[in-house]
Amino acid sequence: MASTNPARGMRDFLPADVRKRDYVLRVIKQVYESYGFEPLETPSVENLETLMGKYGDEGNQLVFKILKRGEKLDLANASKESDLSDLALRYDLTVPLARVVANNKNDLPKFFKRYQIQPVWRADRPAKGRFREFYQCDVDAIGSSSMVVEAELLSAVSEILRRLGFEDFTIRLNDRRVLTEILDTAGVPDELHTDALVAIDKLDKIGSEGVAKELSDRGISDQASAMLMEIFAKTQEIHNQESDINRTIVANLINIVSNETLSELGQILKFAPKAPVLIDPSLARGLSYYTGAIMEITVPDLAGSLGGGGRYDGLIGMFGKEQIPACGFSLGLERILVVMEERGMFPPEIAESTPADVMVTIWNEETIADSLKLANELRSQGLRVTLYPEPDKLGKQFKYADQINVPFVCILGESELAESNVTLKNLRSGEQATVEQSEIVTLVRLPEKIA
Amino acid sequence: MASTNPARGMRDFLPADVRKRDYVLRVIKQVYESYGFEPLETPSVENLETLMGKYGDEGNQLVFKILKRGEKLDLANASKESDLSDLALRYDLTVPLARVVANNKNDLPKFFKRYQIQPVWRADRPAKGRFREFYQCDVDAIGSSSMVVEAELLSAVSEILRRLGFEDFTIRLNDRRVLTEILDTAGVPDELHTDALVAIDKLDKIGSEGVAKELSDRGISDQASAMLMEIFAKTQEIHNQESDINRTIVANLINIVSNETLSELGQILKFAPKAPVLIDPSLARGLSYYTGAIMEITVPDLAGSLGGGGRYDGLIGMFGKEQIPACGFSLGLERILVVMEERGMFPPEIAESTPADVMVTIWNEETIADSLKLANELRSQGLRVTLYPEPDKLGKQFKYADQINVPFVCILGESELAESNVTLKNLRSGEQATVEQSEIVTLVRLPEKIA
Repeated sequence: MASTNPARGMRDFLPADVRKRDYVLRVIKQVYESYGFEPLETPSVENLETLMGKYGDEGNQLVFKILKRGEKLDLANASKESDLSDLALRYDLTVPLARVVANNKNDLPKFFKRYQIQPVWRADRPAKGRFREFYQCDVDAIGSSSMVVEAELLSAVSEILRRLGFEDFTIRLNDRRVLTEILDTAGVPDELHTDALVAIDKLDKIGSEGVAKELSDRGISDQASAMLMEIFAKTQEIHNQESDINRTIVANLINIVSNETLSELGQILKFAPKAPVLIDPSLARGLSYYTGAIMEITVPDLAGSLGGGGRYDGLIGMFGKEQIPACGFSLGLERILVVMEERGMFPPEIAESTPADVMVTIWNEETIADSLKLANELRSQGLRVTLYPEPDKLGKQFKYADQINVPFVCILGESELAESNVTLKNLRSGEQATVEQSEIVTLVRLPEKIA
Repeated sequence: MASTNPARGMRDFLPADVRKRDYVLRVIKQVYESYGFEPLETPSVENLETLMGKYGDEGNQLVFKILKRGEKLDLANASKESDLSDLALRYDLTVPLARVVANNKNDLPKFFKRYQIQPVWRADRPAKGRFREFYQCDVDAIGSSSMVVEAELLSAVSEILRRLGFEDFTIRLNDRRVLTEILDTAGVPDELHTDALVAIDKLDKIGSEGVAKELSDRGISDQASAMLMEIFAKTQEIHNQESDINRTIVANLINIVSNETLSELGQILKFAPKAPVLIDPSLARGLSYYTGAIMEITVPDLAGSLGGGGRYDGLIGMFGKEQIPACGFSLGLERILVVMEERGMFPPEIAESTPADVMVTIWNEETIADSLKLANELRSQGLRVTLYPEPDKLGKQFKYADQINVPFVCILGESELAESNVTLKNLRSGEQATVEQSEIVTLVRLPEKIA
């Protein structure tokens, strides 16, 4: 017999889970739309070549690849993975966006502001809060190099988190060029920059000793590594001690980083005054396509981030003839849900939701059509109505309604049918009353009238 | 350079497409919920063994299989497809539901009514209206053998189609046992029943001659084949000529089909009086797991169906120790959209939707923060506001707003900033007025005041 568990790292969402997920997604969509972002959806499956080479070596390994089909699958002559696979599962929403922008250049406005909320798949080792299928809630603005874009993205995601009830989040902000100039200053050769960034990206997870070891493993000299760690340690000190942190950090970078980059960071701070931004020169972000600002949202009680993003002015050019500037942010639905669940942040109507407002019982075989008719009448008046599917003892029908958390039942027995009325029972208070069918909607919506 | 097209048989949905899809999905969800169905979501990726053997031989071939990863992929010793793949993309929503029910037996109510709206993937040859990724909108009731279930499903899907504006749809209804008894009567041996059903399922597509040929290819005698065709031809004649079609068809089946089966068909008709049901003994449905009622919705101007479903009392038992009765229906989002698009059935607010209610312009570098502040103020008052992302000639900013179909622009120039007001321009009428910031919401919502 086949196992009944979902595949490794994947999850089933039962109704109570889906309602919580939908609640968060509704808030995210509403805020993205209030900022003028438009919805986009792309296929779950992309041509393998679309994804390869966009996420760095570690990313390439984590892409789920789909087996060729039929005659295309020539097992006898296959000597490597790429002989076997032509398609792959979406790894993020940014590369597909870049492909869509290149593919629809003439149909899209010159500034294309889109949001996209879809699952992505990564063949990562599953861990607490890390799944192989998870939702990204992306928002991107294509076509402008202005820091207005970064600022609007940070305002929008801050607004979302506040509406969901988060008060203690921090947006860490950096710029890939800050890192580049720090790496240059520390004497890391150009060809090792990517390796260095992959290592530095793990600072939160493995600490400075871990990063120093990985830098060394990747061929970066101890001297360069020590200088990097010193620069980041100084930042950490400022984070811990200063009152005007961002100003102090920028001042501290003046001799290392170009004025233009520092001025752009300053603009983002100025244009998004309500976003809780903290400049962090050690923030690296794993993905290889970022070219400018990078950002990440953290809360104290979650290892890892609630979301992140950045500017990727070179990615769309990989698909088209033209370089088009772009910047985006991605919220991680699962991370947000984990924290909201642990903190009990869901509003009561979501946490205690019911599958229906009322359940109609079935008295006996002969009255089935009458119960169906009543259920449809109540639905046409706007109630959510479930029907017990077969004749059964009333006690068992009540018990079932209670089990699925439906607050009211309608009883349509022989006497009710004879007198053209309905007995309405409030399962929470135990009260019941025989009423006209036309009264039911009001009584269910204002239960104090019979309770 | 990589191709920028989506993979074969897959599609990108630009904003106008997504809005139409979301509109249809909202109606479907609302109606399913009004019938007391609860949302369920399952992973896109299932263990391969979960899917294999559930859809018949033709189905097995169409499952997208995922390549094993890392050390598990032993290419040197792989001699067949199953050595290379351990996971697969979801092929429908019914098999995952059966797995979930078996896996969560103790946590689910004894009647589990769920809906599930997610994409599925089939490696079919792409054709007009046939894609390799498409959405199914499923609704299933688990745990009852009562025909109330079939009737409620048919009422719900009829309600959905009517709310979307369909008036001319037909629900073809049959029962797998009707087909079995017809096959027995025609002398088709038991072991060829599955083959016969696969052939009969194509009656609409390839006509009776095509089916006769396929029956012959699959080893069914010419005599049996001729008798089958005669029975179905008689049905067709009744469909074309009779006024009380269902009664006549049932009468015509009395000597072939058991009373119990005919009585259940009669109950479905009685319990779903508003659903436009037509009994069709030739309806077969491709999937192999159906055991009782089967149904399919058609409209005159679409080859193929808008959706279909049926009873599958044996499927859950393939995953658990217990046989649990179940019945479901699946609406095909893409099919519905194709017909609605061709007929122009979308309401104007969907067909002509805008990305924002108003666009705020940017006067120059110095006023960026003021424009951002105005945009955020208007958002906090409930407007959807997009911001032109950089200083530019006003004419170009207006042109852009017009291009993306935003009806109003706010101009915040030096004189407006000096006098703490805003110039609001209605791009559709060309009228403009200088107003207090607090007046904007009203004027945008009731544009006749300035237009």
